[in-house]
Amino acid sequence: MPLSFTPPFTSSGRSALVQAPPWHYAGWLVNVAFAFDAARGATLVPLELGEATGQGCVHFADWQACGDDGHELLDPVYAQYRETIVVLEIDAKEGEGARFYCPLIYVDQDISMLRGWLQGWPKKIGQTWVTRSLPLIHPAAAPLSAGSRLGASLSVKERRLVDARVTLTGEKAGRLGFLSAPTIGAVGWPDLTQPERAAVPRYLRADIIDRVESGWTAGSASLQFHAHPVEELALLGEVRATTASAGWMGITVRGALAA
Amino acid sequence: MPLSFTPPFTSSGRSALVQAPPWHYAGWLVNVAFAFDAARGATLVPLELGEATGQGCVHFADWQACGDDGHELLDPVYAQYRETIVVLEIDAKEGEGARFYCPLIYVDQDISMLRGWLQGWPKKIGQTWVTRSLPLIHPAAAPLSAGSRLGASLSVKERRLVDARVTLTGEKAGRLGFLSAPTIGAVGWPDLTQPERAAVPRYLRADIIDRVESGWTAGSASLQFHAHPVEELALLGEVRATTASAGWMGITVRGALAA
Amino acid sequence: MPLSFTPPFTSSGRSALVQAPPWHYAGWLVNVAFAFDAARGATLVPLELGEATGQGCVHFADWQACGDDGHELLDPVYAQYRETIVVLEIDAKEGEGARFYCPLIYVDQDISMLRGWLQGWPKKIGQTWVTRSLPLIHPAAAPLSAGSRLGASLSVKERRLVDARVTLTGEKAGRLGFLSAPTIGAVGWPDLTQPERAAVPRYLRADIIDRVESGWTAGSASLQFHAHPVEELALLGEVRATTASAGWMGITVRGALAA
Amino acid sequence: MPLSFTPPFTSSGRSALVQAPPWHYAGWLVNVAFAFDAARGATLVPLELGEATGQGCVHFADWQACGDDGHELLDPVYAQYRETIVVLEIDAKEGEGARFYCPLIYVDQDISMLRGWLQGWPKKIGQTWVTRSLPLIHPAAAPLSAGSRLGASLSVKERRLVDARVTLTGEKAGRLGFLSAPTIGAVGWPDLTQPERAAVPRYLRADIIDRVESGWTAGSASLQFHAHPVEELALLGEVRATTASAGWMGITVRGALAA
Repeated sequence: MPLSFTPPFTSSGRSALVQAPPWHYAGWLVNVAFAFDAARGATLVPLELGEATGQGCVHFADWQACGDDGHELLDPVYAQYRETIVVLEIDAKEGEGARFYCPLIYVDQDISMLRGWLQGWPKKIGQTWVTRSLPLIHPAAAPLSAGSRLGASLSVKERRLVDARVTLTGEKAGRLGFLSAPTIGAVGWPDLTQPERAAVPRYLRADIIDRVESGWTAGSASLQFHAHPVEELALLGEVRATTASAGWMGITVRGALAA
Repeated sequence: MPLSFTPPFTSSGRSALVQAPPWHYAGWLVNVAFAFDAARGATLVPLELGEATGQGCVHFADWQACGDDGHELLDPVYAQYRETIVVLEIDAKEGEGARFYCPLIYVDQDISMLRGWLQGWPKKIGQTWVTRSLPLIHPAAAPLSAGSRLGASLSVKERRLVDARVTLTGEKAGRLGFLSAPTIGAVGWPDLTQPERAAVPRYLRADIIDRVESGWTAGSASLQFHAHPVEELALLGEVRATTASAGWMGITVRGALAA
Repeated sequence: MPLSFTPPFTSSGRSALVQAPPWHYAGWLVNVAFAFDAARGATLVPLELGEATGQGCVHFADWQACGDDGHELLDPVYAQYRETIVVLEIDAKEGEGARFYCPLIYVDQDISMLRGWLQGWPKKIGQTWVTRSLPLIHPAAAPLSAGSRLGASLSVKERRLVDARVTLTGEKAGRLGFLSAPTIGAVGWPDLTQPERAAVPRYLRADIIDRVESGWTAGSASLQFHAHPVEELALLGEVRATTASAGWMGITVRGALAA
Repeated sequence: MPLSFTPPFTSSGRSALVQAPPWHYAGWLVNVAFAFDAARGATLVPLELGEATGQGCVHFADWQACGDDGHELLDPVYAQYRETIVVLEIDAKEGEGARFYCPLIYVDQDISMLRGWLQGWPKKIGQTWVTRSLPLIHPAAAPLSAGSRLGASLSVKERRLVDARVTLTGEKAGRLGFLSAPTIGAVGWPDLTQPERAAVPRYLRADIIDRVESGWTAGSASLQFHAHPVEELALLGEVRATTASAGWMGITVRGALAA
């Protein structure tokens, strides 16, 4: 049954949850960079990858995604999803630049969830809300200009986990978080025929091409990670939003590379 | 308990489902005008208002809404919702221009549902998906330019009710549907102390001010209303999409007027 | 258009959100009675109805509802919903027995929401989860016997608002909350042609017949109302669960009575 | 990071989407056995496993699941989910009994989705509704007795995919579908560093212990698989419901076995 890229395995492959890449993504992103006590990073960053620097970023994203034929855009329940991505900077290896690691990420569609797992983005289901900037001068439009206020939130299993607020300055911003440096993730599955053994992670990063950006508009921000009985973001302790940005970006993922 | 604009009635009024207007709305709309057999309009248009002309429009809208202080934009689960609005043109009264009537409308948030009922938009819960045009040249961005393809759908109680597809021409479009003429709705509630009596409708239209628009981009479209055991759109028979448009718009509603 | 009991108003009435009563309800209920500082009750109980006694009850309900022909049971997205009902006892009038008032209630389906508003249950959309007792001896079955532990929660707009836990004693319990005494609600809608005026409440209670019960199993409980930026349950201050019960009940509502 | 049974990989393992087995499940099941043209089975059954016999079963399940400490039952958003399971009988190997294969299954919670993938149940997100029998004599209770009518449905990506209706006879029923014989599933993940290669399935079956049942009540049924642009159930052609049952069951899964 070679046509099913992923389960379910049918003779046509039509209903495979995920089709083979390339995967094209375009979306609206609100990005909040933050600082935290680096020593706490070890709760979320694997030792073998390095140590947390105490810098991180939360990305609230409102995506459209499709394959080469773009049919998902004609039936957008297949194209659209929202997610919250948390990345933590890890200390650079000798002679290399900054890198990020994605310990936690939350999404609201199954297709995106599995595409993420395969790339090393360990997605769980969560509900993301993020204000959009509309190209209008109007009280509800939050346009991309100085003074507009945007909000974003994430909830997981019926509890608020992240709250962020951004006030745009109208100035141009640089790239933040996973937009600025390679981001590593962990892929691995346990084998239930040996249920006493946990999954062994393998470190990958997405093979990204064809990035386009609208430019990023800067903002100041506040950010809170709330305590949760299962989720672990609050283990980072107090976080302090350092800078923020908002804008649109498109990328294409054609596979993954060893990290 | 004068502070609760609507139930629940508490001494502070803080948790009233809807706060008093003004209500500011800004959103992305995909509009598909359609023609149908005018004789079938009587299934959905009250006789006392007039007769259907055989012209209608479906609006797929992705809104942000807020009150004067805009706090909803900082916690966007309170601001954002998607809806599908169906309006049918009714024959103009002597000396008056075109008018529309809204027989059916579907939304995904409770606050919007009640605001709608009060204005004469008879909202039920339904799930709307609508492709967005992002300001990027990218396979998943569906930018506002010639050749971009957009999709939209509505489902109600787990069944697909409406499907639409639009291919943008890139040309400028005029206003369609409720964007082009006053739109009348029906408000009325039964009194359960007399449960044998149905609600008596009263005809209103929203009192709209401060409209802003981004301009509308034209498209060609296809449109289908699917059979449904409860919903009645398919009673209009075969519908033929005549023209379509997409763009952004903001309005403010400050109350309602007798229609 | 006399056939539509509620909006939408169509010539057949088929798609009216709510059909005329009788409405039959059967469900699984977990009931947690609680005590609170009576002086705080005035935040949620209208003065003209009386004063809160400092006793209340939260009901977590997993319902099936249908009309006389029962067709909803054949397409259960139309029959099933979950809700959280909060009722507060108010001081009895001279010569009358105990009464409750329902200030706040949260449900997850539109049909139930409107049926509630018409009866004076001021429903908003919220997500209720409640453990069910299954007739099995099994670790996941929480059977109706001593030692079984049940949980229940409510979230509103992506935030946890109520948490409850019950440990069954296996003993027989009496009726709690709205199961034990008439419960009054407030009905009222603002008129948008006079948008500066709030709705004026009218006090009703459901006209309930044909109650059946499975018997109630007693339990001990804990209960928490969490702070929320919009919802007001936490205004009751610290609440102390006094007793709890679980079981099944059926009722039929045929209209409403003046309270 | 040996404590995370699955992603996410954190030092505590607390937020792993799935914790190691044992996994205890108890639920209400409505089971509809059906016959179809066996020749069409090859669209959904891998050749190397055998050939479809033309018999299958759809299980509509309303589950509670937990680990050994049962904490999920105290916060039931973590315990409860609904799913629709399709199994097809495959011809028995020499000297062996009947076996089933699960080509397609749909669930509404992420935790259950990943537990399924690990066991060879290729879960996608879908919305299942299933009428419950309550222990009451009441129009909305659908009790487990002759004449009660139950409905069940599945929708996937906003489209109805399965509809079933059952009328109970009140007689005792035998085990149907996966309740009656070992059920094989396929586990496999593609490796994105070789994105041109599809996943290679490995055939497993759950290692199930400690089954308890309430007994099964028989019924007659109707069943429809609807056409869908992605899902493939309709490829089985016309299906004919042969028998049905309803009841409660508990099982424990402690791992998986090679099929």
